[in-house]
Amino acid sequence: MNEIEVEEVEAVELDYPVFIEGLPGVGHVGKLVAEHLVEEMESQLVRQVYSEHFPPQVVIDENGTGTLAHSKFYAIETEGRDLLVLTGNHQASDGAGHYRLTDVFLDIAESVGAEEVIALGGVPTGELIEDYSVLGAVSNEDRKTALENVGVEFREEEPEGGIVGTSGLLLGMGGRRGLDAACVMGETSGYVVDPMSARAVLEVLEDLLDIDVAYDALDDRAEEMEKVLGRLEEMDDGPSPGGEDDLRYIG
Amino acid sequence: MNEIEVEEVEAVELDYPVFIEGLPGVGHVGKLVAEHLVEEMESQLVRQVYSEHFPPQVVIDENGTGTLAHSKFYAIETEGRDLLVLTGNHQASDGAGHYRLTDVFLDIAESVGAEEVIALGGVPTGELIEDYSVLGAVSNEDRKTALENVGVEFREEEPEGGIVGTSGLLLGMGGRRGLDAACVMGETSGYVVDPMSARAVLEVLEDLLDIDVAYDALDDRAEEMEKVLGRLEEMDDGPSPGGEDDLRYIG
Amino acid sequence: MNEIEVEEVEAVELDYPVFIEGLPGVGHVGKLVAEHLVEEMESQLVRQVYSEHFPPQVVIDENGTGTLAHSKFYAIETEGRDLLVLTGNHQASDGAGHYRLTDVFLDIAESVGAEEVIALGGVPTGELIEDYSVLGAVSNEDRKTALENVGVEFREEEPEGGIVGTSGLLLGMGGRRGLDAACVMGETSGYVVDPMSARAVLEVLEDLLDIDVAYDALDDRAEEMEKVLGRLEEMDDGPSPGGEDDLRYIG
Amino acid sequence: MNEIEVEEVEAVELDYPVFIEGLPGVGHVGKLVAEHLVEEMESQLVRQVYSEHFPPQVVIDENGTGTLAHSKFYAIETEGRDLLVLTGNHQASDGAGHYRLTDVFLDIAESVGAEEVIALGGVPTGELIEDYSVLGAVSNEDRKTALENVGVEFREEEPEGGIVGTSGLLLGMGGRRGLDAACVMGETSGYVVDPMSARAVLEVLEDLLDIDVAYDALDDRAEEMEKVLGRLEEMDDGPSPGGEDDLRYIG
Repeated sequence: MNEIEVEEVEAVELDYPVFIEGLPGVGHVGKLVAEHLVEEMESQLVRQVYSEHFPPQVVIDENGTGTLAHSKFYAIETEGRDLLVLTGNHQASDGAGHYRLTDVFLDIAESVGAEEVIALGGVPTGELIEDYSVLGAVSNEDRKTALENVGVEFREEEPEGGIVGTSGLLLGMGGRRGLDAACVMGETSGYVVDPMSARAVLEVLEDLLDIDVAYDALDDRAEEMEKVLGRLEEMDDGPSPGGEDDLRYIG
Repeated sequence: MNEIEVEEVEAVELDYPVFIEGLPGVGHVGKLVAEHLVEEMESQLVRQVYSEHFPPQVVIDENGTGTLAHSKFYAIETEGRDLLVLTGNHQASDGAGHYRLTDVFLDIAESVGAEEVIALGGVPTGELIEDYSVLGAVSNEDRKTALENVGVEFREEEPEGGIVGTSGLLLGMGGRRGLDAACVMGETSGYVVDPMSARAVLEVLEDLLDIDVAYDALDDRAEEMEKVLGRLEEMDDGPSPGGEDDLRYIG
Repeated sequence: MNEIEVEEVEAVELDYPVFIEGLPGVGHVGKLVAEHLVEEMESQLVRQVYSEHFPPQVVIDENGTGTLAHSKFYAIETEGRDLLVLTGNHQASDGAGHYRLTDVFLDIAESVGAEEVIALGGVPTGELIEDYSVLGAVSNEDRKTALENVGVEFREEEPEGGIVGTSGLLLGMGGRRGLDAACVMGETSGYVVDPMSARAVLEVLEDLLDIDVAYDALDDRAEEMEKVLGRLEEMDDGPSPGGEDDLRYIG
Repeated sequence: MNEIEVEEVEAVELDYPVFIEGLPGVGHVGKLVAEHLVEEMESQLVRQVYSEHFPPQVVIDENGTGTLAHSKFYAIETEGRDLLVLTGNHQASDGAGHYRLTDVFLDIAESVGAEEVIALGGVPTGELIEDYSVLGAVSNEDRKTALENVGVEFREEEPEGGIVGTSGLLLGMGGRRGLDAACVMGETSGYVVDPMSARAVLEVLEDLLDIDVAYDALDDRAEEMEKVLGRLEEMDDGPSPGGEDDLRYIG
């Protein structure tokens, strides 16, 4: 096996697509949105990327079948702009791996004609959230207005610690390639998988890309999560220990 | 020394062998089973694999002789199917090393005609176990029935965290090569080297491979372990501290 | 993207410049000094270095624009000797990366004619400091007198743990190349970003390089820091917890 | 700079020398012995090895001069067998680095005609020691008698965790090359730099190699250490806290 292997599952012809990334991260916001797009719209698996920079791991599915850690690219043709969506269960497990995988991801995106990148993610606030803001960062200042028009906020030097991992590199390396790259990030507590934050991001994407997706699945998931959080809060009021730790990535 | 070095100890001619792996891991279940096969059946050391991806370490034997960290392949000819058994004292110490070593392990297996892989291991339950179930995962759904027929259980999305290390990669990378790969894993507390779990896995293998091995050595070891655990439980009832930590990988 | 990429922003012609490095480190002393030189004197960005050995990260600026982790070289022409100043937000995140990046940094410095290297940094004392000493270390003993003449102290086998990271390697690898390399390090508590220590280092540089910089910005920053520390000390006298941990890299 | 660089300081012609290694490790026993040989006998620095696998660090000497992390080879001509002695302040900081550096160390040793390797080190016992035993491990069983004859003990499967780092690899990789390799290890508490353990190892070497070294410097150091330990024990008897942690690598 090579250091990074791109498997062409299907040939694909898209019309100047937007490349959208949603891999695991804070609140799994990006992953939730990307998977929701893939499930709710007519999507086709077109590429799979395997790499020794992913953890040495297989994931077991509902049939007891194990598949090697990898990332997936889906093509989605829409009335508006076509989409190339990257998702999966893993990020690189080492720094250089992040750079090399992101380089390959951008190669794939450019090979199907994408000139625009939207990296999705979450921004941790450390507190449970009432009102889900969506923050943005761009490689090219010209792009801010379009994002602000659909409700994305830009804040000075935020997120404070910068953006790490694939999303950050897509912005940084995409920008260096001359692509139009943006990160679109939902605020989230950081303690739980957060479908409410994902919904906020999705609403922004709908307006931005002129697409239309059903929210039912995401709303169901959000409702479940609300119930779990409600129960945990109740427990928290009682005599038993509980609190923040119990909320950590329940989903 | 090269990154990975395969030393041919003996030429080997096997009849479509099954490749069986048992390296150190949870409860050392896989290693115990593989070593038991090698010791109880007529086995021949055929390959040794050295690598800078193993820890920088020698192991000292009963004569004070040190040997460099390595993996061993044994050939076992049986009345049923021939076996190629991989065991040793080490797993790779870095992620890429896991991928590269597993690739070489599969090359060796294929070079002697193996088209079927059984990776052995343990699934930690976190509790002491009464009844030792054996779980399975496959690269190819078609293989489930044969395993279920000999008592292997398949559970939805279990083990929950996937399967990591060599066993996981043999399943994932073996599957990508078109090999028929399975993980067969004994439930084990995760706190001790577990010959009882190894015995449960071995019984499954006997039926699956139509082989016949004596259990005496493993039973002796299991009995010793029961005694140790018994003593520890007694201590645990008394005033002195004890408990879980004391059980961690006693063997 | 290559392992290390040097981007030529501007061609540069300098007169036997001194290469000065100030990257993040203890008390951010080196970085504060280097940035102060760049801001207070007439400087020109001439090279940017990107690398997979930097963290996989973008930093967001005041406009919401993200730029990929990188190091910057600035050229400064002075009445005295010209300067080539290296600064940035990151050090390498792995050991080999430190060596490889430092090698490239020295290549760049030599390519513009630098034969002298001054690596700036801080030496942690573990205590709040009244009187800011500046310590030195050299690749070539001949250079000590010049540094001692401007107030740099040399102490036997100090800093005790040696000098790690880019500053240490510039001294060690620069020395091996036959360059005249020195580390100039301000004593600092190690608990806070320390503009006072930076000022002490800057005063040494002024004398050494026969340059003249305004201190206003640094003094403002030092004053702010004094206020923060004062408040923290007050808090420390009161009933609320506080102390050392609260001082850690406030800035 | 290359991954590993061997600098030839002096040409060297030795008569079938024994290669002796003493790098930092448990109780710094190996390093103390190797340095003692170099200081007490007529030695000549012949090779220096630099590598990105060493920590990114310079060490500062008594003159304030910093030198890049490296290993040193010294040649010592004796009435008995000539010696090639490896010492230094660093071990590799990553697993693959250990393998690659050891490979180069063995190349150097073989290039000057060494066919015998003695790797020095300490075995931690976890307790303060009255009577300093010296343990051995060999690549080739035939060599045991010669070592036992000078007082080296061989114990079944000890050291239990094997031997890690350069010493272990010299045994393991040296053995694979067909060299006659041994580890000679002084028992030591593991809590302090241990000149008493070093003396025990040195006495073994004297007999084994038919050399004669003065012990004064080592004895002085041992006496100092005894005093420090005595003081610490006294403190330990008093009301103030103290004990094991205070002993950790005092020297």
